[in-house]
Amino acid sequence: MPGAGRAAGVRRLHPQPSEEPPAQEEDQDLLLAAAYVSDAQYNRNVPFETSPRAIRLYYFYNHWTMQVAIYFFICVDLSLALFEEPALFPLPFLLTLFDLIIYGSLEAVNIHSIRWSRALRPVFLINFPESRQIRRTFRSIRNTLPDILYVFLLFVFSVLIFSLMALKLFGDRGLQTVEGLPYFTNILDIAFELYVLVTTANSPDVMMPAYNFNWWYSLYFITYIIINTYIFMSVFLAVVYNNYRKHLKNEIRKLAYLKRHKMIEAFNILKVKVGTEFVVTEARWKQLARIVMPHISGPHLELLLRISDEGQKGHVDKMNFIRLADLLNIQVVTINIKRHPLEDWMPRVYQSSASLLVQRMVRHRIFVWVYDVIILINAIFIALDEKNPFISYAEWLFLSLYIIEILLKLYTYEPRAYFGRKQFWNWFDTLIIIAALVATVANTTIQSARKYNSQQILDIVLILRILRLLRIIVSIQRFRLIVTTLINIGPTILTFGGLVLVVYYVFAIIGMEAFHGKVQFFDPNFTTPNALVCGNPGLKDSAFARDRYCKNNFNDLASSFIVLMELTVVNQWHVLAGGFALVTHQAAKLYFIGFHVVVVILIVNIFIAFILEAFFVAYSLEKSEVETAIEKKIQELGVGIQEEEMQDGKLVDNMDAKDGGFSGDDGDNKRKALKGLYFRIASKKYRTVDALLQQMFESEIAPEDEGPSLDEILNFSAGDVYPKNPNFENSA
Amino acid sequence: MPGAGRAAGVRRLHPQPSEEPPAQEEDQDLLLAAAYVSDAQYNRNVPFETSPRAIRLYYFYNHWTMQVAIYFFICVDLSLALFEEPALFPLPFLLTLFDLIIYGSLEAVNIHSIRWSRALRPVFLINFPESRQIRRTFRSIRNTLPDILYVFLLFVFSVLIFSLMALKLFGDRGLQTVEGLPYFTNILDIAFELYVLVTTANSPDVMMPAYNFNWWYSLYFITYIIINTYIFMSVFLAVVYNNYRKHLKNEIRKLAYLKRHKMIEAFNILKVKVGTEFVVTEARWKQLARIVMPHISGPHLELLLRISDEGQKGHVDKMNFIRLADLLNIQVVTINIKRHPLEDWMPRVYQSSASLLVQRMVRHRIFVWVYDVIILINAIFIALDEKNPFISYAEWLFLSLYIIEILLKLYTYEPRAYFGRKQFWNWFDTLIIIAALVATVANTTIQSARKYNSQQILDIVLILRILRLLRIIVSIQRFRLIVTTLINIGPTILTFGGLVLVVYYVFAIIGMEAFHGKVQFFDPNFTTPNALVCGNPGLKDSAFARDRYCKNNFNDLASSFIVLMELTVVNQWHVLAGGFALVTHQAAKLYFIGFHVVVVILIVNIFIAFILEAFFVAYSLEKSEVETAIEKKIQELGVGIQEEEMQDGKLVDNMDAKDGGFSGDDGDNKRKALKGLYFRIASKKYRTVDALLQQMFESEIAPEDEGPSLDEILNFSAGDVYPKNPNFENSA
Repeated sequence: MPGAGRAAGVRRLHPQPSEEPPAQEEDQDLLLAAAYVSDAQYNRNVPFETSPRAIRLYYFYNHWTMQVAIYFFICVDLSLALFEEPALFPLPFLLTLFDLIIYGSLEAVNIHSIRWSRALRPVFLINFPESRQIRRTFRSIRNTLPDILYVFLLFVFSVLIFSLMALKLFGDRGLQTVEGLPYFTNILDIAFELYVLVTTANSPDVMMPAYNFNWWYSLYFITYIIINTYIFMSVFLAVVYNNYRKHLKNEIRKLAYLKRHKMIEAFNILKVKVGTEFVVTEARWKQLARIVMPHISGPHLELLLRISDEGQKGHVDKMNFIRLADLLNIQVVTINIKRHPLEDWMPRVYQSSASLLVQRMVRHRIFVWVYDVIILINAIFIALDEKNPFISYAEWLFLSLYIIEILLKLYTYEPRAYFGRKQFWNWFDTLIIIAALVATVANTTIQSARKYNSQQILDIVLILRILRLLRIIVSIQRFRLIVTTLINIGPTILTFGGLVLVVYYVFAIIGMEAFHGKVQFFDPNFTTPNALVCGNPGLKDSAFARDRYCKNNFNDLASSFIVLMELTVVNQWHVLAGGFALVTHQAAKLYFIGFHVVVVILIVNIFIAFILEAFFVAYSLEKSEVETAIEKKIQELGVGIQEEEMQDGKLVDNMDAKDGGFSGDDGDNKRKALKGLYFRIASKKYRTVDALLQQMFESEIAPEDEGPSLDEILNFSAGDVYPKNPNFENSA
Repeated sequence: MPGAGRAAGVRRLHPQPSEEPPAQEEDQDLLLAAAYVSDAQYNRNVPFETSPRAIRLYYFYNHWTMQVAIYFFICVDLSLALFEEPALFPLPFLLTLFDLIIYGSLEAVNIHSIRWSRALRPVFLINFPESRQIRRTFRSIRNTLPDILYVFLLFVFSVLIFSLMALKLFGDRGLQTVEGLPYFTNILDIAFELYVLVTTANSPDVMMPAYNFNWWYSLYFITYIIINTYIFMSVFLAVVYNNYRKHLKNEIRKLAYLKRHKMIEAFNILKVKVGTEFVVTEARWKQLARIVMPHISGPHLELLLRISDEGQKGHVDKMNFIRLADLLNIQVVTINIKRHPLEDWMPRVYQSSASLLVQRMVRHRIFVWVYDVIILINAIFIALDEKNPFISYAEWLFLSLYIIEILLKLYTYEPRAYFGRKQFWNWFDTLIIIAALVATVANTTIQSARKYNSQQILDIVLILRILRLLRIIVSIQRFRLIVTTLINIGPTILTFGGLVLVVYYVFAIIGMEAFHGKVQFFDPNFTTPNALVCGNPGLKDSAFARDRYCKNNFNDLASSFIVLMELTVVNQWHVLAGGFALVTHQAAKLYFIGFHVVVVILIVNIFIAFILEAFFVAYSLEKSEVETAIEKKIQELGVGIQEEEMQDGKLVDNMDAKDGGFSGDDGDNKRKALKGLYFRIASKKYRTVDALLQQMFESEIAPEDEGPSLDEILNFSAGDVYPKNPNFENSA
């Protein structure tokens, strides 16, 4: 990032074009300004040189083909592990030969060369500029470390003190665990058991021998659980959450100021003096917009200009120029209230009284209720035994009913509006039904041709059939709100998917190197002595073998990921750790403890912090109006449409429908006069936490505020975020 | 609480005493005003009648003997369960006879009369006025219920959908669990298993049969865990936390306004007109203060008056009168820099060069380090085997070293300052050492007299010996800060103790009624078939019997509490639930699910919310100065002392010490001139979250603001707490 400062510095060394610059240089200036605007628009913060060649390279780098290529190579890089030695899909010999030669020759030199570089592969995923969110989470983790370290040390100290106490209290009692092993006789074992107790995975078994001996000893464990499991784990969450919040705000402040900084940079490149103030002429402004957004339509550009040059003075001043990045991000829609295609095709039939009755029926509330009841009956039929041929026929009936429902809706509502971009549930419905139809037909064909059911297709049909029941949620308003919030945080949850992928990948590679082949999976029906100990005599009489965990091994990438998932869920992780320690060395437990600290104490807590934050932002916005300056202006000029208006079926309906129905015709009438292009102002509920916070912060900086200098921005620290005098509202 | 409004209303009907009222009525007025001030001082909000007799009764009710009596009867009431039929300590027959007669005669009428009233006993604990915090938490739970209900319904719906899917996907496969039971064939069993999976208690066992069959099926479980275990559980925390925060703020706002309201009420009773404004004369003000605080000393009262009547005009105006409640809450200390008693007694010896050398040595940093090293060596000795006589003698050596340390410190520092009220670690040290000394001597005496070790005493000695190691924390500054925060939230954690006690008690009584005697505990060495199934053949081959959980039963109150504690920790709760379902009925599982929902989803989340809140308030205050108006005034008048100054050893040291040492003598010199009474201004770090928040809120209301009317205050709703336009700082 310091490079950005340098790049800007280099730019400043150029003499500002005082009068008419040569055409060539002007072109370069436009390209550079457009690069800044584009970076501001997408919140990109990659430093780049400002030489003409570097700018062209930067454009090439930002082209979508390059992005796709980068993603492709990352996937190839990461999926290598699928084909490498502990492989899910072994590669043919010749392909792996080359790899083997390199590995083999290394092996010849250092006898136990391990390919540690594999564990570093996901670093590509992190260092990739577009994965800003993943990097931010990593940065947040890194910044949290010093704070959490002291709590962690105190926690370890507490575990050790309790271990020492346990050794002295229970060590000489000659107690035995349920398995008949000596109880609490070795300080290291005790410390491990007590660490496991913090994760609750061995409660209450670890307490039972002492509790059976004398019930007063349960007080020791209760004290331990209250202090270490409840208080310390909550303190970890508090520290992680507090840091997450501080750094989130700091990053957002940084992003907002950097964005403004880039726009000012772009303005300074293009500005000319008109009268007393510096402005950008309309012609150059248009050229710039065309470079940033090559496919922009003429009317769209005019609309943008109408916002930016209110007085139609032929130029855009600094304040309005700075808004360009936000302006380009607002979606522009054409509102032309379309009639139903059937009405154009056969107006008589469509407007006949029978047709209107159907339409009124479909729009009626009772239509929804009837289908809710059908779904409930369907649920009961699914729960019943399927072997009965009557029930199997009923399934056809339900499928037909659902298809009829969709056709009726398409008949009543304008199809393009019905399949609008944000009509999530309409899409969901239709896709589920079509997929179910295809799968059911395919299955029946296979069944009648080959007299057997394809298990995979049957499974898919079943899942689709049950997913259909989800529709019942949509009918209940209170549920819909929660589901909307959950769907909105979906994209950011995917960020966590990326983060978890990176950490899992590193741990999976290490795990495969350490534990590959130590444990074998046998079919559960095998009861040979070898199969009962997962092919490793070291597991004899272990809890790992007794619970038949043989398939939880590190023999290939997919299995490793599933083991790591089980470790993330925490329960029984000590059994897994104990099993792998038995087949290798007791020190193997450190791998599992390390995984617990990194994934459960850090990442899961960040995940919880993120969900809490998302819900708190949603709750605090529920009753408030946050509007950016630009949205206000768009509203004032009357060229904006609220997202809600498009959502609530007002614009979705065929505007010429004459019946009352339940879709608020007043709104329709108001809009009827509208034609042409409008800005679509996204409703609050469709924005991410980040976007909302950035918007809130930007609405607090005055339009003329140029923000601190670039160096200051880049050195913002999270510590500055707290106000000097917290007030009652924001302190808690 | 609506009664308070009524009481105030009644009061207003009395004619205000315009001139000199008769002495009798004046006395009544003073008592009433004092009752209001006292209520404001302790944030008590009990409505009371204002008739003279009612006021006297109210005084009697608030007397400490009554409080003690109430606590005593609550304890008796709650501990009844210890002696009742499923008893830990059975009462002698005659005592229980009376109880039995009542119970028996009831039994004769309704054959299965169950004494449900027992479960309602803890209601006394809640409805008791002093347990404001417990009631607030209950109110918070009640207010959270509607919000959480919809999330919970959605969650149940999700579990049911997944159950249906599991039944269809796995039901017909003929799979078996590790125990050889059929896998996922009954929809109710599946729903229970999947609910248990949300608590993670049966992961990964519940997945293994399907995963062994085909590894693609693990995706079903991964999806389930992400949606239900991670997302839904975090949403529960978010909903609970959000409500907790809203209601906490609302309650604090209410308390602050009610306090002000009571003070204004008291002012209106006592006010007389002097010039243009209403005031309270000095004489009446003093009478009032003496009634509120009967044991107040003359100088203390003068000091309070000096703050309240700045201009020494002989009367207190409204604004200053309102502060009286806060003023009475600020501790007043006498600062008289005392010399060491030894110095008075034998000044020559104490000031001799040898003595000064000892004092300088003790004050030196190295003295602390030497003792840290001794503690570490001690820790190693404790970990070693104790049978070795050398080590047993070493213990005497360490004990002597610690005693010498305390004596040296007492020689160097002024003893009364060393054992100051907030010198937590000095007290801790001394008590641990004295107790260890007493116990060790007692043990040695018993040993030499009776040739056997008392196990109880040995256990206590051991624990004391290990607790000594905690001292090492104090030496490390970073640790001390975390520990201080944890010690500060201690008192409020006790509130949760009360809450948990109430809920545990209710569930324990129900559990004892339902499961008493169904499971018997046998000594673990018993291996008769009956002992192996905990005395109940229904447990044959169950996980409950296999894990030897026989002592986890509901046969008496203590055992029930321990079972409930294990259920709170969650792990293996399904084994406990399954066991008790086997010996009674499958419906018994509902009791355990109910407990999980109430305790883990609601109460544990409130506990986490509380810890988060406490840390966030601590973090946001770390860098800020919140000072109430009254503290500012005390500082301006120069009659205040910061708590920190008393803490940092500045005032604790003997002021006449001539050596430099490390204790900042500048501070000492500055204070040397001071003598007499001062206000002790509590430092931020010794205040509870509630007190800090109330203080922050009060510092935001202007002194002349009388707040909304009483009715409005009482009808404050949590919904009003959020600001209309949240800004960037407080939204997230």
